[in-house]
Order: sequence, then structure tokens, then C-alpha cells
Amino acid sequence: MRWVRYEGDGGAVFGIVEGDEVAEVSGSPFDEYERTGKRQALADVRLLIPFEPKTFYAAGVNYEEHVREAAVLLGREPDIPQKPDIGYRANNALISHGEAIVKPADSTERFQYEGELVVVIGKEAKHLSEEDALSCVLGYTIGNDVSERTWQAGDRTLWRAKNSDTFKPMGPWIETDVELDSLRTTVRINGEVVSDFATNNMVFGVETYISAMTRYLTLYPGDMIWMGTDGATQNMKVGDVCDVEISGIGTLSNPIASES
Amino acid sequence: MRWVRYEGDGGAVFGIVEGDEVAEVSGSPFDEYERTGKRQALADVRLLIPFEPKTFYAAGVNYEEHVREAAVLLGREPDIPQKPDIGYRANNALISHGEAIVKPADSTERFQYEGELVVVIGKEAKHLSEEDALSCVLGYTIGNDVSERTWQAGDRTLWRAKNSDTFKPMGPWIETDVELDSLRTTVRINGEVVSDFATNNMVFGVETYISAMTRYLTLYPGDMIWMGTDGATQNMKVGDVCDVEISGIGTLSNPIASES
Repeated sequence: MRWVRYEGDGGAVFGIVEGDEVAEVSGSPFDEYERTGKRQALADVRLLIPFEPKTFYAAGVNYEEHVREAAVLLGREPDIPQKPDIGYRANNALISHGEAIVKPADSTERFQYEGELVVVIGKEAKHLSEEDALSCVLGYTIGNDVSERTWQAGDRTLWRAKNSDTFKPMGPWIETDVELDSLRTTVRINGEVVSDFATNNMVFGVETYISAMTRYLTLYPGDMIWMGTDGATQNMKVGDVCDVEISGIGTLSNPIASES
Repeated sequence: MRWVRYEGDGGAVFGIVEGDEVAEVSGSPFDEYERTGKRQALADVRLLIPFEPKTFYAAGVNYEEHVREAAVLLGREPDIPQKPDIGYRANNALISHGEAIVKPADSTERFQYEGELVVVIGKEAKHLSEEDALSCVLGYTIGNDVSERTWQAGDRTLWRAKNSDTFKPMGPWIETDVELDSLRTTVRINGEVVSDFATNNMVFGVETYISAMTRYLTLYPGDMIWMGTDGATQNMKVGDVCDVEISGIGTLSNPIASES
């Protein structure tokens, strides 16, 4: 099942994608819902971020090749994580499929994409074993963890390097039927492939993160976990279009705009 | 004006403290509100966290003495921040005035308080100058940034050291009439003073943080900024009661309980 969120007549509504159409529901996939009977062409609706997240968790460094590439970039020794220490990003930065990523006026040219799998939590969970970890997952969407590498290397935290307004495109929808091991992430700039990796080739997988996290914290419906990216990344410039495709989920596409 | 949030007949409601009483409102201080006419003794209501925050910002290290003490504790050189790089905490950890801070079964004895001023954002804001920064502030409350120091030193992020469930007591209310320079923070364990400092003796003040943050990000009503703590901190043990008082705001009090 594929969940979208879009502008309805009276504000944001959830809908279920069926072929080229979307069937509107009242309620939400995180709670109870009912079909309203209203249908529209998917192409005619304005997509929003697929949900308003509660806590925005991010694995950060979670692929070995990316750790090595990032270490070179930041002038440090590669430091492969030894345990799943989760981090955070911020909701102010979220934009939907199609919206513009705004490159700040004082950003350097090292303004880069990171294609990521996003885990969407559907049920409250604490103390889950790795075996049961996926029981709290509603589905998966796609994130672009846009990063200003100069700021990332120099600031004490990742606040502006990764959380400036518009730096977190997410969407286009939540896909509930996903086989993690079969996924492949492909990033394109203006149609040219710039990144391509097996999505589940993580240092610590989704099950490991969820189990480790819920030892100490409660996950709630609407929380999400961005799982990190692999490999080297390249610069994006104003006027480019960046697509992040994860096979079996969809394609998240966003143009790059200059700060007005 | 002093805003509380508590269990009303039909769920959480906001109220205005007037003497020993609370006047219930419909709506919220972040939007529009109207008095319902219902009044109760403040002592009779069950206080909740004073609002459900959107993004949970935290200054982290923002007092010089605390930086020096923390450096000793973590076995590092003191590193006084050169600019206001904001960080994050997580909503799962929030509890209200009076609720128990639960010490995890595997926590070491280095389980400590941090008394902090909490800035509550009331209006959407971007590109604020330092001069205008406080125009987006609704008021202030009190936070206890509970920290497991062993985990803080060893984990890649602060996720469980500072964000395990119950590690972020906040309250008891939002005070809107505050003179920042006159505030004093005092922490007591079982009534004994263990920390005492001039609240506004920060490396970077509230105005500086808000102005720097809103250069890159939008602050929204319901966002909050925890401003850090000063000095050394001491261990709390199960059975203790930890009070954080900020003069002119109030006292946040929480017992320490063991994990069941």
C-alpha cells in the first residue's frame, strides 16, 4: 500500500495510491482511517511531505564507504561506528517532493545530496528485540539529507550544515510493502547517475537500530529514522535537479534554487 | 503572566495562574485563546509539560565554567564555543513537574542533573536581528537536562546519555514576564544546594542564539531552546529529589526512581 499526503479541499489529507489515482481517506495511517469515496488523478494533487514527523532520528554515518569518503573530506581518520548511536535532524528543514532546495547565499560550492531510506514508525514501541523490530514500522519513504560540507566540517553541531530550511526533502509517499534486501538507491543530478548503492548494505540495519533505540526510548507513531547514505557525494548547483530513487519505493525529485 | 497546562475534563488544557488558582482557557498561548470561566485551585490540577514542543533545540555547552568541568570529566581539553552552534534533544524524554526521572538499570552512578533556562518560542520567526530577537519569545520555563556522563563520554551521539525516556523534566509553567539579567538558577538535591549560578552568565545569550539560528532556519510557535547549564554537577541516586529553581520563574521538582 502506498500512502500520500496532499492538499485537500479543507487542508492536508491522506490518500491511498491506486494506479494513477488517489483515494482520499479521513483520519490517518497512524491511527484509524476510512475512505471518503473521493478519488482524484494522482497527477492533479499537490503532494505534501508524506506526514508531519514527531521526532526526527537520523543514523548519520551508517555505510562503510561513506565513512571513508567523509573522513577524507573532513581531514579525519575513518571511524566506522561500533554501535548504533542514533542522532537527530530537525523538522524545520523538511520540504516535499517537487519543492525547491534553497542554497543559502553564503553556502560554499560543497553543497551536496545524500540519498537515504526513511523508516516511518506506525506503532508505539519500547523494548523490541531485533526479531520483532519491524513490527512497529508502518512503511518507508525517501529522504535527501542535503549537506553543506564546509559547515559540516567547521561547526560544533550539524545545525546549519544539515538543518537549514529546505535541506531535508522527503517523499513522495510512504510505501508499506518493502523487501529491504532488494532495494537499490540511485541518485541523479540532471538525469546523470552520481550515486548508486544497495540500500540495505548498512553498518547497522533497521532492525538493529530499532532494537537498540527502544532499549532506552519509546518510539511513537509518526517518528522516523533516516538510515544514512553510502559512497562519495558530489556538488549540486543552482538550477540542477536532484532525484533520489529507491527501487520499489519511488523517486524523490527536487530542483536547487538560490536564496532570494 | 504564568501559563500552565494540565489535565482538564476532556484532556489537556491550558490555564492562566492567578494567585493560588488557575483560570482555564480554550485554545492556547501559541494561538488564540479565551477564558472558559472555569477556575480551580492550582494545587488540585495535575500539571503536564507546559506545552508539546515542536523542535527541541539545545545550546549544550554555553557556560565557561561548565565547559571546563565537562572537559575534566570527559578527559578532553576545554573547548569554549566560538559561535552559537545549536544542538538538539528529543521529545520522547520529556516529563512534567513531579514525574519520576527513571534511572536505567545499566546507568552508572554518574547520573547527573543540569538546571537550564528554557526559551519558549511564540511566533514564527526568520532573519531576526539580536535587537529584535526576543520579539518571537512567548516566555520561559525550566528544564533539567539529565545526563548519564559515562554514556556521554563513550557514545558517538548524546542519544541515550541525554535522551532516554524521562531524562528531560520540564516545567512547572511558562512565565512570560522575565528579566533575563536578574535570574538565578539554583539546583538542590534533597534540599541541599548543589549548583547555583547567574542564569544569564552565558557564553552566547538568548538574543545571540535566536538571531544566529534564524539566519538559516525558521523558528515556529512551540519550538523551544534549552540554554545550557553552568558549573560542575553531582550524581543523583534513586530515592533523591532534584529541584531546579530559577528565581522569577519557579521550581521544577522531580524524584529519581529505579527502572522497574
